[in-house]
Amino acid sequence: MTTTDATRHHDPAVRGFASDNYSGAHPEILAALALANGGHQPSYGADAYTEHLQDVFRAHLGPRAEVYPVFNGTGANVVALQALTDRWGAVITGDTAHIHTDECGAPERVGGLKLLTVPTPDGKLTPELIARQAFGFEDEHRATPQVVSLTQTTELGTRYTPDEIRAICEFAHERGMTVHLDGARIANAAAALDLPLRAFTTDVGVDVLSFGGTKNGMLFGEAVVLLTPGVARRMRHVRKLSMQLSAKMRFVSVQFEALLAGDLWLRGARHANAMARRLADGVRAVDGVRILHPVESNGVFARLPHDVSERLQKRYRFYFWDEAAGDVRWMCSFDTTEEDVDGFVAALREELAR
Amino acid sequence: MTTTDATRHHDPAVRGFASDNYSGAHPEILAALALANGGHQPSYGADAYTEHLQDVFRAHLGPRAEVYPVFNGTGANVVALQALTDRWGAVITGDTAHIHTDECGAPERVGGLKLLTVPTPDGKLTPELIARQAFGFEDEHRATPQVVSLTQTTELGTRYTPDEIRAICEFAHERGMTVHLDGARIANAAAALDLPLRAFTTDVGVDVLSFGGTKNGMLFGEAVVLLTPGVARRMRHVRKLSMQLSAKMRFVSVQFEALLAGDLWLRGARHANAMARRLADGVRAVDGVRILHPVESNGVFARLPHDVSERLQKRYRFYFWDEAAGDVRWMCSFDTTEEDVDGFVAALREELAR
Amino acid sequence: MTTTDATRHHDPAVRGFASDNYSGAHPEILAALALANGGHQPSYGADAYTEHLQDVFRAHLGPRAEVYPVFNGTGANVVALQALTDRWGAVITGDTAHIHTDECGAPERVGGLKLLTVPTPDGKLTPELIARQAFGFEDEHRATPQVVSLTQTTELGTRYTPDEIRAICEFAHERGMTVHLDGARIANAAAALDLPLRAFTTDVGVDVLSFGGTKNGMLFGEAVVLLTPGVARRMRHVRKLSMQLSAKMRFVSVQFEALLAGDLWLRGARHANAMARRLADGVRAVDGVRILHPVESNGVFARLPHDVSERLQKRYRFYFWDEAAGDVRWMCSFDTTEEDVDGFVAALREELAR
Amino acid sequence: MTTTDATRHHDPAVRGFASDNYSGAHPEILAALALANGGHQPSYGADAYTEHLQDVFRAHLGPRAEVYPVFNGTGANVVALQALTDRWGAVITGDTAHIHTDECGAPERVGGLKLLTVPTPDGKLTPELIARQAFGFEDEHRATPQVVSLTQTTELGTRYTPDEIRAICEFAHERGMTVHLDGARIANAAAALDLPLRAFTTDVGVDVLSFGGTKNGMLFGEAVVLLTPGVARRMRHVRKLSMQLSAKMRFVSVQFEALLAGDLWLRGARHANAMARRLADGVRAVDGVRILHPVESNGVFARLPHDVSERLQKRYRFYFWDEAAGDVRWMCSFDTTEEDVDGFVAALREELAR
Repeated sequence: MTTTDATRHHDPAVRGFASDNYSGAHPEILAALALANGGHQPSYGADAYTEHLQDVFRAHLGPRAEVYPVFNGTGANVVALQALTDRWGAVITGDTAHIHTDECGAPERVGGLKLLTVPTPDGKLTPELIARQAFGFEDEHRATPQVVSLTQTTELGTRYTPDEIRAICEFAHERGMTVHLDGARIANAAAALDLPLRAFTTDVGVDVLSFGGTKNGMLFGEAVVLLTPGVARRMRHVRKLSMQLSAKMRFVSVQFEALLAGDLWLRGARHANAMARRLADGVRAVDGVRILHPVESNGVFARLPHDVSERLQKRYRFYFWDEAAGDVRWMCSFDTTEEDVDGFVAALREELAR
Repeated sequence: MTTTDATRHHDPAVRGFASDNYSGAHPEILAALALANGGHQPSYGADAYTEHLQDVFRAHLGPRAEVYPVFNGTGANVVALQALTDRWGAVITGDTAHIHTDECGAPERVGGLKLLTVPTPDGKLTPELIARQAFGFEDEHRATPQVVSLTQTTELGTRYTPDEIRAICEFAHERGMTVHLDGARIANAAAALDLPLRAFTTDVGVDVLSFGGTKNGMLFGEAVVLLTPGVARRMRHVRKLSMQLSAKMRFVSVQFEALLAGDLWLRGARHANAMARRLADGVRAVDGVRILHPVESNGVFARLPHDVSERLQKRYRFYFWDEAAGDVRWMCSFDTTEEDVDGFVAALREELAR
Repeated sequence: MTTTDATRHHDPAVRGFASDNYSGAHPEILAALALANGGHQPSYGADAYTEHLQDVFRAHLGPRAEVYPVFNGTGANVVALQALTDRWGAVITGDTAHIHTDECGAPERVGGLKLLTVPTPDGKLTPELIARQAFGFEDEHRATPQVVSLTQTTELGTRYTPDEIRAICEFAHERGMTVHLDGARIANAAAALDLPLRAFTTDVGVDVLSFGGTKNGMLFGEAVVLLTPGVARRMRHVRKLSMQLSAKMRFVSVQFEALLAGDLWLRGARHANAMARRLADGVRAVDGVRILHPVESNGVFARLPHDVSERLQKRYRFYFWDEAAGDVRWMCSFDTTEEDVDGFVAALREELAR
Repeated sequence: MTTTDATRHHDPAVRGFASDNYSGAHPEILAALALANGGHQPSYGADAYTEHLQDVFRAHLGPRAEVYPVFNGTGANVVALQALTDRWGAVITGDTAHIHTDECGAPERVGGLKLLTVPTPDGKLTPELIARQAFGFEDEHRATPQVVSLTQTTELGTRYTPDEIRAICEFAHERGMTVHLDGARIANAAAALDLPLRAFTTDVGVDVLSFGGTKNGMLFGEAVVLLTPGVARRMRHVRKLSMQLSAKMRFVSVQFEALLAGDLWLRGARHANAMARRLADGVRAVDGVRILHPVESNGVFARLPHDVSERLQKRYRFYFWDEAAGDVRWMCSFDTTEEDVDGFVAALREELAR
C-alpha cells in the first residue's frame, strides 16, 4: 500500500481486557477491504458484494434468510425492532439488555419504542419471566407487547441453549409476538455451544437477528437478518430512515464475507472464548476473587476488593460492572493471547498480595 | 496482508459517472487503516486517533473547532440539527436540500424536526429566500425557526462564495438562528473556490458543519464539527442516541487524518472538479446537449434526449435527475480519469448521432 | 343549575371577527352536557353516548363509518395521519395546510411524519399539484407518499366541489395512497355546497375525516372518522398513544350528538356562511378594500391599508393574515349577528375615511 | 337552557366503584361553563378566564406558580416531562406509575422519553429506590436521569407525607434532577393529609405538577403547573406541539376556577376519601376479603375469591387490578353516596355467602 499522511498514535503491542471493542480488525478483514476497493460499484447496497452476501448468510442461516448490513449494534437493534413493531408496539426484554441499558434511549427516541423489562439475574429471559409482561394485548392503555428481545450471548457472558430459545419462541409466537435476538456476540455463542449458527436461531424459531461483526474482528458493521420470511416489510426504508444505510456498502459486505465465507468468524470466537476460560481458570486459583456468572463465552465477571481493581486498572484496562459492589468485567477478544491472560492473572495475584 | 476468504466480485477497471459514492477508497486511506490497526484502543471515541483528530481539524477550521466523527451523511446532518434545536425548533432549508429530499424523513422521524423549505432554483439560499420562512419566532402555533441549513457545494453542483455565506450567517444570527452547513462535498467547494476550508465556514459565521469524508475517498465516515464554541451541548449524547457512535472509532478518525493531515483531501477534490470541467467542456462541444447549471464543482447537470440517455446508460452508469424533463446528473470522483471523461464524451457523441 | 364560585370575567355581548374559535358554545350544546351528566358511565369511550354516536355519524356518512372522538383539531389530524402511514410514510399536502403551518410541528414531532408540500395559491390541491410530489413510491431515499391531506373548507375560505375531491381521490387511490380530509370546518362546506356531508366525503372516495366540532359550536371536541372500512388498524391505540383519549368521553360524544342528531350543525354553519357573504357584500361596496379569495364559506380575506386595519382592530378583534402585504382575515361564526356585520362594515368605512 | 336534539342514554341513578372517571361533572362545574359562555373571547389561552386562573392557582400553590391548562392526564404528564428533559434525558419513576403502565407508551412515542423504573411495592418512591437508577449522569451510553416523577396519591391509593416528598426532592436536586408530581388525584391527597396543596408540593421542593381536574369533578381538563420559576422554557410551545392546546380554553379554565376558587375541590375529595374509608371499614368486617394497601385516599384495594368478584361485578362495576391474584380495585368519587357504599358492602356479603 501507499504511504499515508496519518501517523501511528498507539502501541499495537498493548492489549487489555476492557472490551472486545478495544481490539482492532483482523488482518484478513483489512485484506478483504483491499479486494473490494477500486473501480466503481453501485452505492447504497446495490453492489456485487452485498448481493453476494445474501448467499454467504444463507449458507449459515438457511435459504430464506435476508441480510441488511448496517453500521453498528444500536442501529441493528433499533432497525430490527422498528421493523417488528407498529406504533403501539412494545418490546419485552431483560433489564440487563443492551437495548435498555446502553443505547442512550435510542429505541425510545428513534423508534418511539416502549420497552417492558423484567429482572433477569443471569441475563437470560425465560417464558416465565416474559409472562410477567406478556399481557394486555388488546388494552389500549398499554403499549402492546409485540416483540421479545433476547441477547445471545448475554450481557453477563451467559448463553442460551437451543432448547431455551425454542421455548421462548414458542411462548412468544403463541401470543402473536415475534422474537428478536441481539447477536452482537453471536459468534461466541456458536463457538461456545459448538453448534452451527442456525441451530439456535433459524431452527428454533427466532424471527430476526442483529448479527454482530464489530466484536468479531471487523472494523465496523453489523447486520439485520430476517429469518422468518415476510416478518417485516420495507426493511430498506426502515434502515435508511434510521440513518444506517452505508453509501459504500461494499466495504461492509466484504468484511462480512471475509468473516463468514470461511471460518474466520469461528476461529476468532473460539479463541476469545478459550482465552476467557483460561482467564477464569487462572482467576479461580487466586484467593480473594470470586467469579460471578458461569463463564460461557468470552467474558469473565468477578468480584474483588475495589482497591485491588483500581491498582490493576493501571496495568490493564478493564471496566467496573457494578462499582459499588466491586464487580468487574474482563473481556477477551480474537486477538487476546495466552501471554496476555497469564500476565493479567499474575498481575492480579500481585495486586491482591500488596 | 494475509489472504482472505472473500472473493473479488467486481471489475476494478470499470468506472462511471453515477455518483462520487460509486468510487471506492483512496489507497492512502486503506493504508491508514492498517496503521491504526493492531493492539487495543479505547472504544467509542476515547482512542488516541480521535484525540489527535481534534488538532487535525483545528488546523483547518480554527483552534476552537470540535469534531465528532459519525458514520454517514444523514447521521451527521441529523446529529447536527438535533444539537441546534429545541423540541419546538424548525430548520429553514432549500427545497433541493438533501435533508429534505434524500433522507427518507430521518430528520422528522429521528429528530422530530420540522423542515421549512423554500424553492431555490440553483440550490442556493439567500437572506431573501430565508426571510420567507424566518418569522413567527414567538408564535406557539408554528415551529420556531432555529437553524438555517445550507449545502456547500449544493446538490446542483453550484457553490456559495464566502460573502454569500457570510450574509446568510448574519441574517440568521440577527434573528437568533444558527447556521448549519451540510458539507458532504465541502472539499470540492474549497478546491473550487481555491480557498482554505475555514474561509467559507469558521471565518464567515457558520456554526456547525457536517464534514464529508465518504465522497472524498474514505470508505465511510463523516464528522460533525462545532465551529462556534458552546453552540451545542452534550454532543456525545446526541451522537449516541442518534445511533452514530462508532465502537472502533479509531478507524473513522484515522481515515480523516489521512485525508486532512496532508493534502489528500484537496488533491482528490481538485481532480474531481477538474474532471467535471473537462466533461462539461467536452459536452458543450456536442450538439443536442444543454448544460443546466454552472459547473462549479464535481458534478455536471445536463438535458438531452431521453432515448440518448437510456442508450448511454448501457455504457456508463449515471442517473436521471428529472426523468420527465430529460435531465441527467454526471458526477466525477477522485478516481475519474481523463480517459474516462473522454471516452464518455465520445460515447455521448455516438449515441446522439444514432 | 347551582351556583358556582367562578366569576364571569368577560362581556358576553362583545363579538369580533378574529376566529370562529372565539365563539363560545351553542346553548343547545350546554344543555346536552347536562343531559349526559349524573350517575356513572364507563370511561374512555365505553359509555352509552359514544356507542350511540356511531349511529349518529353513520346517518350522515354512511353505514360503514367509524367515529373516534378526540379533543382537538391537531389531535384529530395527527391521529388520522398516523393511522394511515407506516414509519416510512409521507403526507402530500398544500403549503397553506393547517397541519403544515399551524400545528407547531406536531405531525413531525408526535407522528414522525414527513410532509411533502406543494404551493396552492387558493388553498386547494389538484391532481396536477399532487403529482409534483407523488413519486418515488419504492425509493428508499425518499419518504414514501402514502396519504394526500386536503382541507375542506380550506384555510383560505375556499371550497372543493365533490368532483374536485373525487378526482383527487381517484388520483391518490390509483397510486396506492389514501385521502385524508381535514374537516375542521366541514359543516361550513356542506352548508356552502348545499349538499349532505357524505356527498363530498364518503361518496367521492375520502378515506378518513377529521370532523370538526369546536368551530361549529362545541366547547371542545373533534372526531376522527374512518370512511373506508379497514383503512386503519388499532385506532383506539393510536388515539391513546397520541394523548387524545378523553376519560369522560360521554361529554364529547353528547356534544356531537346535539350537533348532528338534528340540524344544529347545519343551522350554525349556514348562518356563519351567510354572515360572511353579508360581510363580503358590505365590504365590496367600500372603496379601498379588496376581497382576496372567493368567499365560499365563513371567512373573508381582504387587503386594505395597514393603518386602517390597526385602527379597526381597536374596535373589533381580527387577525392579519399576511401583515407585510396588508392582508387580513375576517371570520364569522354561528353566533355572529347581522348587527355585528353591519356595525363592522360601518366601522371599516369610518376608519377608511379618516 | 334550551332543548337539545341529544337524548339521555343512561340512568343517572346508577353508580359503581370502577373509577373516579366514571363520575360525571359536579353541577357547579356545569354552571361555571354557562357563566363563561356567550360572546367572543380570544382563543388558545389568551382569554380572561385563563388569565384569571393564574391567581386562582397562586392562591393555592404560591405566588410564583404558573399554570398551563391541558386536556387530560396523559397530556399533562407528557407535557411536563418533555419540558423538564433534554433529548438525552430520562425519567426515574416507580414501576406502578401511570406514565409507565397506562399511557400506551405516550411518554416514549410522543416525547422520546426513556423511563427508568424501580419496583415500588406500595406505589411510593424513596431516595433509596431512586438511587438504584440515579447514576451515569455523564455517561453517553445511558439516557441521563433528569427527572424523578412521583404520583400523589399513588396508583395504589397510598400517599406521601410532606417529609417524604421533601426527602425525594432534596435527593433529586442534589443530583441535578428535577421533581415532577403526577397529581391526577392531588385533591384527594390534600384532603387525606388535611394540608394545603402547597404543603406537599411547592413548600417541599416539587418543581412541576400535573394537577388533576377530571377525577375531581370536571368534565375534562388537567393543568401543568410550574412551581419552580424558570424550571422550563417555552411551555406554550411544548403544550401546542403535544396537541394539548385547547382552542376555547376558557372552558377548561373556568372549570378549574369553579373547583379552586372556593372549596369545591376539597369538598369533593374529602367526600370521596370518606366514602373509601367507609367502604374499607365495611369490608374489613366481612370475612373472606383482605384489604391490600393502607386506605389513604379514595381507593380500596382488596383480595377476594375470583368468582365472588365476578358475581359482584354483575351488580356493581369495578375492575380487577391483578386478575390472576384475585386483586380488585374499588374507587370512590365525589358523587359516591353512603347508600352506594352500604349497598355495595351488603352485596359483597351476599356474594361471599353464596
